[in-house]
Amino acid sequence: MKYQPKDSSQSPRFCGIRTFMRLEHIKTTDDIDFAIVGVPFDTAASNRVGARYGPDHVRNASVLLRPYNPDQEINIFEHCSGVDYGDIDVIPGNIHRTYDRIVEGIIPLLQKGIIPIMIGGDHSISLAHLRAMAQVYGPISLVHFDSHGDTWDHYYGEKYMHGTPFRRAVEEGLIDVEHSIQVGMRGPLYGPTCIEDARDIGFEVIPMREMRKLGQENVIERIQSRVGSSNRPVFVTFDIDFVDPAYAPGTGTPEVAGPTSHEALEYVRSLTNFNIVGFDLVEVLPAYDHGDITAYLASAVAFEMISLIAIKKRDKVVQAPYSEQKN
Amino acid sequence: MKYQPKDSSQSPRFCGIRTFMRLEHIKTTDDIDFAIVGVPFDTAASNRVGARYGPDHVRNASVLLRPYNPDQEINIFEHCSGVDYGDIDVIPGNIHRTYDRIVEGIIPLLQKGIIPIMIGGDHSISLAHLRAMAQVYGPISLVHFDSHGDTWDHYYGEKYMHGTPFRRAVEEGLIDVEHSIQVGMRGPLYGPTCIEDARDIGFEVIPMREMRKLGQENVIERIQSRVGSSNRPVFVTFDIDFVDPAYAPGTGTPEVAGPTSHEALEYVRSLTNFNIVGFDLVEVLPAYDHGDITAYLASAVAFEMISLIAIKKRDKVVQAPYSEQKN
Amino acid sequence: MKYQPKDSSQSPRFCGIRTFMRLEHIKTTDDIDFAIVGVPFDTAASNRVGARYGPDHVRNASVLLRPYNPDQEINIFEHCSGVDYGDIDVIPGNIHRTYDRIVEGIIPLLQKGIIPIMIGGDHSISLAHLRAMAQVYGPISLVHFDSHGDTWDHYYGEKYMHGTPFRRAVEEGLIDVEHSIQVGMRGPLYGPTCIEDARDIGFEVIPMREMRKLGQENVIERIQSRVGSSNRPVFVTFDIDFVDPAYAPGTGTPEVAGPTSHEALEYVRSLTNFNIVGFDLVEVLPAYDHGDITAYLASAVAFEMISLIAIKKRDKVVQAPYSEQKN
Amino acid sequence: MKYQPKDSSQSPRFCGIRTFMRLEHIKTTDDIDFAIVGVPFDTAASNRVGARYGPDHVRNASVLLRPYNPDQEINIFEHCSGVDYGDIDVIPGNIHRTYDRIVEGIIPLLQKGIIPIMIGGDHSISLAHLRAMAQVYGPISLVHFDSHGDTWDHYYGEKYMHGTPFRRAVEEGLIDVEHSIQVGMRGPLYGPTCIEDARDIGFEVIPMREMRKLGQENVIERIQSRVGSSNRPVFVTFDIDFVDPAYAPGTGTPEVAGPTSHEALEYVRSLTNFNIVGFDLVEVLPAYDHGDITAYLASAVAFEMISLIAIKKRDKVVQAPYSEQKN
Amino acid sequence: MKYQPKDSSQSPRFCGIRTFMRLEHIKTTDDIDFAIVGVPFDTAASNRVGARYGPDHVRNASVLLRPYNPDQEINIFEHCSGVDYGDIDVIPGNIHRTYDRIVEGIIPLLQKGIIPIMIGGDHSISLAHLRAMAQVYGPISLVHFDSHGDTWDHYYGEKYMHGTPFRRAVEEGLIDVEHSIQVGMRGPLYGPTCIEDARDIGFEVIPMREMRKLGQENVIERIQSRVGSSNRPVFVTFDIDFVDPAYAPGTGTPEVAGPTSHEALEYVRSLTNFNIVGFDLVEVLPAYDHGDITAYLASAVAFEMISLIAIKKRDKVVQAPYSEQKN
Amino acid sequence: MKYQPKDSSQSPRFCGIRTFMRLEHIKTTDDIDFAIVGVPFDTAASNRVGARYGPDHVRNASVLLRPYNPDQEINIFEHCSGVDYGDIDVIPGNIHRTYDRIVEGIIPLLQKGIIPIMIGGDHSISLAHLRAMAQVYGPISLVHFDSHGDTWDHYYGEKYMHGTPFRRAVEEGLIDVEHSIQVGMRGPLYGPTCIEDARDIGFEVIPMREMRKLGQENVIERIQSRVGSSNRPVFVTFDIDFVDPAYAPGTGTPEVAGPTSHEALEYVRSLTNFNIVGFDLVEVLPAYDHGDITAYLASAVAFEMISLIAIKKRDKVVQAPYSEQKN
Repeated sequence: MKYQPKDSSQSPRFCGIRTFMRLEHIKTTDDIDFAIVGVPFDTAASNRVGARYGPDHVRNASVLLRPYNPDQEINIFEHCSGVDYGDIDVIPGNIHRTYDRIVEGIIPLLQKGIIPIMIGGDHSISLAHLRAMAQVYGPISLVHFDSHGDTWDHYYGEKYMHGTPFRRAVEEGLIDVEHSIQVGMRGPLYGPTCIEDARDIGFEVIPMREMRKLGQENVIERIQSRVGSSNRPVFVTFDIDFVDPAYAPGTGTPEVAGPTSHEALEYVRSLTNFNIVGFDLVEVLPAYDHGDITAYLASAVAFEMISLIAIKKRDKVVQAPYSEQKN
Repeated sequence: MKYQPKDSSQSPRFCGIRTFMRLEHIKTTDDIDFAIVGVPFDTAASNRVGARYGPDHVRNASVLLRPYNPDQEINIFEHCSGVDYGDIDVIPGNIHRTYDRIVEGIIPLLQKGIIPIMIGGDHSISLAHLRAMAQVYGPISLVHFDSHGDTWDHYYGEKYMHGTPFRRAVEEGLIDVEHSIQVGMRGPLYGPTCIEDARDIGFEVIPMREMRKLGQENVIERIQSRVGSSNRPVFVTFDIDFVDPAYAPGTGTPEVAGPTSHEALEYVRSLTNFNIVGFDLVEVLPAYDHGDITAYLASAVAFEMISLIAIKKRDKVVQAPYSEQKN
Repeated sequence: MKYQPKDSSQSPRFCGIRTFMRLEHIKTTDDIDFAIVGVPFDTAASNRVGARYGPDHVRNASVLLRPYNPDQEINIFEHCSGVDYGDIDVIPGNIHRTYDRIVEGIIPLLQKGIIPIMIGGDHSISLAHLRAMAQVYGPISLVHFDSHGDTWDHYYGEKYMHGTPFRRAVEEGLIDVEHSIQVGMRGPLYGPTCIEDARDIGFEVIPMREMRKLGQENVIERIQSRVGSSNRPVFVTFDIDFVDPAYAPGTGTPEVAGPTSHEALEYVRSLTNFNIVGFDLVEVLPAYDHGDITAYLASAVAFEMISLIAIKKRDKVVQAPYSEQKN
Repeated sequence: MKYQPKDSSQSPRFCGIRTFMRLEHIKTTDDIDFAIVGVPFDTAASNRVGARYGPDHVRNASVLLRPYNPDQEINIFEHCSGVDYGDIDVIPGNIHRTYDRIVEGIIPLLQKGIIPIMIGGDHSISLAHLRAMAQVYGPISLVHFDSHGDTWDHYYGEKYMHGTPFRRAVEEGLIDVEHSIQVGMRGPLYGPTCIEDARDIGFEVIPMREMRKLGQENVIERIQSRVGSSNRPVFVTFDIDFVDPAYAPGTGTPEVAGPTSHEALEYVRSLTNFNIVGFDLVEVLPAYDHGDITAYLASAVAFEMISLIAIKKRDKVVQAPYSEQKN
Repeated sequence: MKYQPKDSSQSPRFCGIRTFMRLEHIKTTDDIDFAIVGVPFDTAASNRVGARYGPDHVRNASVLLRPYNPDQEINIFEHCSGVDYGDIDVIPGNIHRTYDRIVEGIIPLLQKGIIPIMIGGDHSISLAHLRAMAQVYGPISLVHFDSHGDTWDHYYGEKYMHGTPFRRAVEEGLIDVEHSIQVGMRGPLYGPTCIEDARDIGFEVIPMREMRKLGQENVIERIQSRVGSSNRPVFVTFDIDFVDPAYAPGTGTPEVAGPTSHEALEYVRSLTNFNIVGFDLVEVLPAYDHGDITAYLASAVAFEMISLIAIKKRDKVVQAPYSEQKN
Repeated sequence: MKYQPKDSSQSPRFCGIRTFMRLEHIKTTDDIDFAIVGVPFDTAASNRVGARYGPDHVRNASVLLRPYNPDQEINIFEHCSGVDYGDIDVIPGNIHRTYDRIVEGIIPLLQKGIIPIMIGGDHSISLAHLRAMAQVYGPISLVHFDSHGDTWDHYYGEKYMHGTPFRRAVEEGLIDVEHSIQVGMRGPLYGPTCIEDARDIGFEVIPMREMRKLGQENVIERIQSRVGSSNRPVFVTFDIDFVDPAYAPGTGTPEVAGPTSHEALEYVRSLTNFNIVGFDLVEVLPAYDHGDITAYLASAVAFEMISLIAIKKRDKVVQAPYSEQKN
């Protein structure tokens, strides 16, 4: 493959400009299957702030990644090629101009069937990601791992916060809500309607308490059955606060009593039969990340996302860019 | 209800003087069912010190709490009212004068049937809490979650340390030891007698190793059967070092290999059938609490305690203040 | 005086809900000369973010303050009364709605001649503070301590950022620029015009390099001569990054080679002959403030500000609220 | 027993020069069964560095240890005696001279049948430990807990790094590889051969994924059956990164999704039937160890190691020093 | 000399059990001129707590010390011998029993003319140190560097706190107050009497503000003239909060705007003409000491103290133990 | 100029892959006057370790740098062009192979007259830098800012440590020692010879104590007079521990009582009349750098180094590459 990580058995992993997984930093849309895209935006955070340093932090930890995934039994770069595309130039304080820049920045990738793995930043960025996705793929199936559903209507009268993107996305018609699912919700709420409301606008929701009762295998089945056809374009969004704060302290609104890192990775690994066309990984906040363990976990999550892309390529299930398919 | 938290969907949670759960800070005994009482005393700590900053630290994290408890399916403030009563003015270095101030400070609450949730501070404060309790309720049933039994006789000849309060309490006749139980003890001991001694003075003790063998449901049953009658006044004391240090690093004498935060919360949630008249939550020590995860967990524990109070009120099982009942 | 700090020789300073200097937290405009007002807004930060936790952080450190100022030889609360007014409910992500809330929140204080000491938050909040000031006092003289002039025109096309408030304030006619001065500017710039531009819109500017040449006494004289009449209403804004990062690491855009904490405090202490009607103290950012030394310094700066208010009162130089004077 | 820890119920645990478990620091080979030996060498680390402070860090946390092990039901110092032997004077930057010093330093202990518990330092030190072992005991059975197999051939052309000691040890004939086993390997690899290679040179390897399928009891059985005879000299090496980073963040190359601290301790506790003649415990790195939780865990691991020694003594299964046995 | 530090050009400084300056840890009173004595007591702290870890923290940093003092042009161990005497077994929570242990622990040293350098711990320990001193030397001249005078009468009614030892010492007749001086006082006070009171009980006091006016040389002269005769036994107590928090953040009650580390060391270096018979160095609090800079400074202060002892020995001005002189 | 930093008024400084000063990361020798070269080597450290993360840490802080230097009144990129050349692939644990890689990596730059600014890593890297320099320029004048002279002969028998490079360099004939000077030495030494030895092998040495007596202007004069001719090729090496630890805590062997950051920068700024052909900036160690203040200072030092290059270019004093000059 054209673009591969630097070999850490030849060049120590602590050498060099920090790019994701020691991939080349080059803003190309040629010869690549995926692109890591940082979105250092944190204006929409309602509690602890500083996710603007998330992309850099995850890149730093990602130097530990090696190319072979023993859990999926695949050598990623035998099957796919990718780059660190750098960061979107966000506009701190202005979510709408930032959204425009994200959409503009991502569209050229999507038009060529390249899969973006967007690293936030707070969860508000997913709305822009979905806008771009919908332009190219139409309404898209959402698989959402999080401790919060982020389908609130507003915060302090503000419609665009990190707790509202998926309600906005449904309102804007970006999501194929019939085939979408939210997993992991927990913690105190404003009221019972918090989760009911998400269901009312069409999502299947599996709160944490229900997850524990079902067991991991059944949850995976529920996800698979909800998404359905392996041809349907799927968008996966992973908020690092899905994982328990013992494993992921570096985040803005931690919720105790979540899944372990192993459980979280297994959920991502289970998504092999889908036509995933976009990923994001959000809410990593370095100022609270002791020992960088959140960053190591986030880089492992991204590694599993890339592995899914490699599996699709290996198994020839990769579609041509969807826009072409429509023709 | 009269006293409720500020609404965080209207006023951001990082705004305002830090009170527990954004409740009003008012030293009233009118129109309330519970009161959060800080006791920033840490003179009796035998290892790491600094729990004097525990109440402030837990208050800071508690701003994330919302009023509805999805695990118990209850909206707390539909059923009960509470305030942040502030801190007891402790006397650092003088445990006996501090004990007097705690007793004096708490009695007016107890006399009106208000349930105090005391936030430490080291575990020595429970002795004063029990003294006040016993004045109002007589000897009381103890449910004690901890990695240490705190029934040693002395440290370096000192009778009043954070490792001795429950032996003192038994000696002073404050505890209905026949209906009391200690759960979670683990880690190296001075000898096998450490746990035997607790049993000798009357406690049922379920060490961690036994907990793992029994499973959580059986442990819960053991607790319930030990306490017995749902009318008996119960005091719940929760040392944050009950939980594994991965989930609760910010404490003075951490013991590895404890329960997860989920397991710990489930134990608290299971106490719905008791007539709990007092709670304390101790040994949170911010200087070692990176990412504030211990504080988030502690605030979640307190949230479950408040939820128990709300459940009692909803289910009409709340007794009149015990002193009145006696009449 | 009616409102005074709790006595720390009776109640330990680590006890109680954290208010500034252990003053009462009460939202009154009666019987007070000054009010501490937190403004936890940090949406306009261009580099490190998190000043939303600044007010809480400064309050925590301020418990060490005692009422007598030996440098000014005054016992503050013999001459004036004040409260912790709490925080303005800012709107994270929305600077304009936040500005409105600040103005609304402050006006009632100003109308009664009460002097607000606003604790940020990022420096953008000063624009709202000045808007309120100008409504009551008309264009006001500015004394500005900072390592940056904050008179840039825009950042990434955004007009309202923490590097632009004083240009906006001049454009809006809020500042009596002929009697205004900026002190302490240093560090790399976009070009020589950065400072020239501030002079072009009317400010006197004393960059750090010039300060070193002049010596502290001469700088103080320059400030005094610039402001002129002791009757003119003056607004003092103090960005904590004015001070060297060795003394104030907890801030968003630190600039090395600044004044010591002693020098910084001396500048504030020197402002005894002015009719100061408002203060702010901004850019304290706890996530980078190890050992809390920035917070201790910030609380010392606020203490000197309050001392200036006490001195005015003692020396009978306090005017009636300016609006009344005009009649 | 001659050498025992200071009694923490008489002398507070935070008093005194920090030795392991408050044992005497004396460089004797008389009257002892085990010796704690620090090896503060970290030159061979490929990622985060600083394990030179590991021994000091573990000693600090070990003051919490008490002499009775409730999980093994043994009072250690009724059966064995031990000292803190201090540190080997390593040569930072020179692995070969350091190896010589380790071998020289350890041999006198081994020759008297004393069991060293070596605390690293990075994992490269095990090669020297094994060299000394093999001199006295001949090729030795290895039980290896780690997230990495450390059987790579080289890093950047360097043959002696912390990722290569066990390949070197096999090449040097130090290991009885037929009775050796590696447990816990996980995380991204350079390729599938990473683990195959370890098997090719003779090790049994149980990667983490397989461990989860087998369950803890079966893994323990596999270890026992691999080692076989209870007479065979066994060497146990425990890399703290075997444990999940939530439980052990303070290490150089953390791998997410590992065992809990409880599971890790159970593996060590299970080794009661072996003739263990040496232990090491490596890769504790304080600079990343928030709240010292890694140090507490490491001291608990060492405590279990000492407990195994005590059990051997109690059960009279302790052999004379092996060299003597050969005669 | 008999007892000297380990040679760090032969044995790396990060090797070995941490003793002060890598001196031997041996509880001898033979063949030594000075002894480092840790006193990990912090029960009397009124604000941040944790100085119990001070002695360990200073020992850790002191490994960087080399034997030659270029500022004083003396090779310490050519002239004197010393050991790390370990820690006094304090009684946390019980100041009076702790005082007794300190006195008992120190007397044997004093009786042989050995100079103790006591490392705290909070400042309350000085009272016990002075009690022991007075037993051997009678009332003693005090040279006191601090930002607080510690001559308050009580805190919350408690007579023995870290803010009261020097008033108690005067009351107990331990201090030759006519030849005693306090240097460095600053920060907000309860009232003007705070400093007047110290003068009223006999101390000369040079507050920080006066120090700046006088200049360092004049302050040194004032100290020298106050102490007077070079034969008079002098006790030097150094509270690390004398130094500015930028240089010494790791302390309990930091006061901004203090001397630099250079200035602080120069004061200690200036005390060459006195018959100093005891030193203490208190209030180092590691939990707030980022980068360990406070510990490095504290170890430098202790190094200058030891240098003073070496100078006395070199210059033959060392008296026989005072008790003998009296004969 | 061809290569300039990204414009932070258009793209926020927290966006993008971290390169020094937001310059392009491109390994070119065309069209550039200077190149930032990271050397993440820390094998030769004798105390705290971790400078391998120094280059990354300085790059992170350097995003705050703007192009205009008001102290030197120059807009850097009007006069010169530069890139972030990335890191040398060092060999951890093998200093000699690392030295070869540094020399090979740097020579192509030197041969084209490009000035490298090498960011360490520990100070041992300067020896390799000087080897490359001497190949191109012959023996070179050294201007050395440091708290240690680094002219020891060996550590533990090792000749190549971070305390020995300048003795080795003299032995290898790389330095024009007659025109070389060391500035800032302080702290305890092994003996008086430590500094005498440096003088014996030819260096002029100005220890810190002498610097204070001379005053900054005289020290600058001494440097200028020592180096002499403005044509002579000069190499400037700056160890961040030259600066006081209050300003630069993030380093391996901090020495208290050093210059302020302002003083340190003034020394660098004063070197305008020299033909500086190489710089290095070493010993930044992030694990101890609270609030990143050391990194901000280091990036300011590098900024002044680049400014010197720009000044040379502006003033036409830049020589053709020396190799060409020789023709």
